[in-house]
Amino acid sequence: MQTQEFDELYGKVAQELRRGILVLATLSQLKEAKYGYALISSLAEHGLEIEQGTLYPLLRRLESQELLQSEWNVDGSRPRRYYLISPTGLEMLGALTAEWRNLTTVMDRLLEISSTEGESHESH
Amino acid sequence: MQTQEFDELYGKVAQELRRGILVLATLSQLKEAKYGYALISSLAEHGLEIEQGTLYPLLRRLESQELLQSEWNVDGSRPRRYYLISPTGLEMLGALTAEWRNLTTVMDRLLEISSTEGESHESH
Repeated sequence: MQTQEFDELYGKVAQELRRGILVLATLSQLKEAKYGYALISSLAEHGLEIEQGTLYPLLRRLESQELLQSEWNVDGSRPRRYYLISPTGLEMLGALTAEWRNLTTVMDRLLEISSTEGESHESH
Repeated sequence: MQTQEFDELYGKVAQELRRGILVLATLSQLKEAKYGYALISSLAEHGLEIEQGTLYPLLRRLESQELLQSEWNVDGSRPRRYYLISPTGLEMLGALTAEWRNLTTVMDRLLEISSTEGESHESH
């Protein structure tokens, strides 16, 4: 496989990995109301890059699922839609956080076995 | 929101979370050749439930992407297709494992901030 092909495939699979955690990451940061771009900056600061074209539809979806609430704030130089987690969203955040902890435990176990196998079969 | 509605939504979002890690989990367990059902059992033993209808198409996809190799083994009572990680797959496993470690670090940070905010704003 060519390097470019590998990089493209890696990009696709790594994106799948990130996509799965976006809902959890987004809910976790909206216990205080934020507008879209502020949320993108905040996630990026903590190491999670997400594009506007991905985040904005996600925010609208989460609002239609009643996990977020939003309102226009017109105090600043231009009106901005602020998003805040809803009571149902808080409950979802709790459930997803528990599932996330469970999955990281499982993956730690699987990757540990995997690296042990790697050591004992290096000649393969 | 009704409990049943919440449970359905949770099921959907939690599945997205799991789907993202399936490629990583699958590659990690195929440093030794396994047939499909043995892989399902092995993942389930470590706490990751995956259905045949999800895993079998994934195995075929990963083979078509040259991340896995497969061959029929006819020694047993019935022929079985065994899957094994390819050299490219091993490289992908390394890259994805690094990205996974990165994402867990990011999420730990985000969830920690989130729970601190939760404490200081409990009255909301």
